[in-house]
Amino acid sequence: MASWEDYVRKVVPYTPGEQPKNPDVVKLNTNENPYPPSPRVKEALEGLTEDMLRRYPDPAASGLVDAIADQYHVSPKQVFAGVGSDDVLAMSFLTFFNSKKPLLFPDISYSFYEVWADLFRIPCEKQRLNDRFEIDPEDYMKENGGIIFPNPNAPTGVLMGKDRIEEILQKNRDSVVIVDEAYIDFAPKGSSALSLLPKYENLLVVQTFSKSRSLAGMRVGFAIGSEKLIRYLSDCKYSFNSYTMNQAALLAGEAAVKDSAYYEQCCRKVVATRERTKTVLAEMGFSFADSRSNFLFVTHKDVPARQLFHDLREKNIIVRYFDQPRIDNYLRITIGTDRQMDILFDFLRNYL
Amino acid sequence: MASWEDYVRKVVPYTPGEQPKNPDVVKLNTNENPYPPSPRVKEALEGLTEDMLRRYPDPAASGLVDAIADQYHVSPKQVFAGVGSDDVLAMSFLTFFNSKKPLLFPDISYSFYEVWADLFRIPCEKQRLNDRFEIDPEDYMKENGGIIFPNPNAPTGVLMGKDRIEEILQKNRDSVVIVDEAYIDFAPKGSSALSLLPKYENLLVVQTFSKSRSLAGMRVGFAIGSEKLIRYLSDCKYSFNSYTMNQAALLAGEAAVKDSAYYEQCCRKVVATRERTKTVLAEMGFSFADSRSNFLFVTHKDVPARQLFHDLREKNIIVRYFDQPRIDNYLRITIGTDRQMDILFDFLRNYL
Repeated sequence: MASWEDYVRKVVPYTPGEQPKNPDVVKLNTNENPYPPSPRVKEALEGLTEDMLRRYPDPAASGLVDAIADQYHVSPKQVFAGVGSDDVLAMSFLTFFNSKKPLLFPDISYSFYEVWADLFRIPCEKQRLNDRFEIDPEDYMKENGGIIFPNPNAPTGVLMGKDRIEEILQKNRDSVVIVDEAYIDFAPKGSSALSLLPKYENLLVVQTFSKSRSLAGMRVGFAIGSEKLIRYLSDCKYSFNSYTMNQAALLAGEAAVKDSAYYEQCCRKVVATRERTKTVLAEMGFSFADSRSNFLFVTHKDVPARQLFHDLREKNIIVRYFDQPRIDNYLRITIGTDRQMDILFDFLRNYL
Repeated sequence: MASWEDYVRKVVPYTPGEQPKNPDVVKLNTNENPYPPSPRVKEALEGLTEDMLRRYPDPAASGLVDAIADQYHVSPKQVFAGVGSDDVLAMSFLTFFNSKKPLLFPDISYSFYEVWADLFRIPCEKQRLNDRFEIDPEDYMKENGGIIFPNPNAPTGVLMGKDRIEEILQKNRDSVVIVDEAYIDFAPKGSSALSLLPKYENLLVVQTFSKSRSLAGMRVGFAIGSEKLIRYLSDCKYSFNSYTMNQAALLAGEAAVKDSAYYEQCCRKVVATRERTKTVLAEMGFSFADSRSNFLFVTHKDVPARQLFHDLREKNIIVRYFDQPRIDNYLRITIGTDRQMDILFDFLRNYL
């Protein structure tokens, strides 16, 4: 190996879900929203002028940040915006987890956590979910350099109660605790850890526009935390790339967050379809935890998940399969439109 | 200080140039192109469908990468695309400069290099430009963990000949050498280090759409190098954020790179205005190196730069002033339209 390669940071990257080019595919693999974004988004994008294209965007993303702050009743100084929640999380790992002590997160969880820890050489220690795929707060009461977990968890969809989140926070005032709420908008109102922010300066809540606001293609995510946390995070961001969000993302994000009636309506539709899907799949012999997200994580008593994944794929129905310990007999199925789910149900009725 | 703060990465961030909201400003401070992007860009953006907004973008940015590869006659496997060249450079620092040996770059240069080195805790050693603001290749023939320099250099505008770049490359096969060509499209044809790529596996050339292609607002940059370098860089990028470039950036970038006639015409106009500006400013008593970029780095025998900067600002003419050793009596003036430059000249004629 040439010696310049000695200085290269070598990593095993995260593998994102497939983005098929075939438009006939029933795409239930990456938890996108099946409904289009607010019509205001298209209108906003039509306002992109030549000057906006030609000039650098606002590095502080003020229009978007102010709109998020307004929506969530916090100060703009408590808001950080980024290129999807992945960017916000990556930047948070870089900023907050600089300890020799291990970062703690669940063994079954967003698989990117391990990748970021590896990228930034952060020691980590996975905590085993119980057999109902639940987090035990006790596991997070040992010495650590930081804590992160998704709520609802991915790929399980399991929601942890706010009282249990607070148990973790109470015992961890000396490291940053990140609650990754990518799917929170599909959970019952009041489930978010945002309401705990006034009590915990070291709590960061991360959310995304990719799911509930149907803007995966524009890459908009955000974090809300104490002003101090946000200042540290912004400093690192400004040390990485002054302008991470382009003019189109800023306009689209601002328009999306302002149209809360539309977004709530979409969330209600997804939740209704999710509940119907639970009923149908249970009748077919699938079992799954009680998802509060926009996907179900299912296993079947008779059919191996890997085989089903491939057979669905052959019929142009794409779901997500993770070849990982403890979950290699599960499929993660995104909640699509009712029509898309009916196509899936029809296939399964024939198949089983 | 709360103990969670002990684990925080503390940095002194880069300060980007001001983005004033007042449209009447003569904005000559951030090296944007004064001409709009290709009309094809607007057309392409009109093609943004609801499905594109709703779904994740292509993580490989294939349409854009292929268009760049085509334009520069390289394999798509030699191309890496990112959120402006800042993102490409940040990712390159993270990927390639993991040595205990120092990273070398010029003392007067893009001030972000020092910030990235600090962010990623990369040791570095600045090499003094000579008094004509030129790089001496000899300074880059000591032990190092990597080398980076802009060509043309910023904020000086000075272009280094390809023979001298090759001198550096010949003596540095054991570390990655990055030539940051943000401004190369305003230099004479054939100045780019791209033609050296077949001989040096460890050479990475970074360029941007922010200047010559008038797309600062959309954040598009790219690197071209050996397949091996690009693979390492992509691995780190996929370990940071699967989808850094949103659908709008992908469409805009692809359209811009394909319209090479338009871009060449814009570059010619900027270069013509730059040469005229040199003549006028020299007559007024300014001196400057022979810039081959889209800005001039000027000093005046009688007027202190800092004072002039503030007096210009009062008249809504914004240029860039760097309060740094050796260059604190200089102003960096972006080349605008002929009309914008005339406003500047009129002001200066009165002022001097």
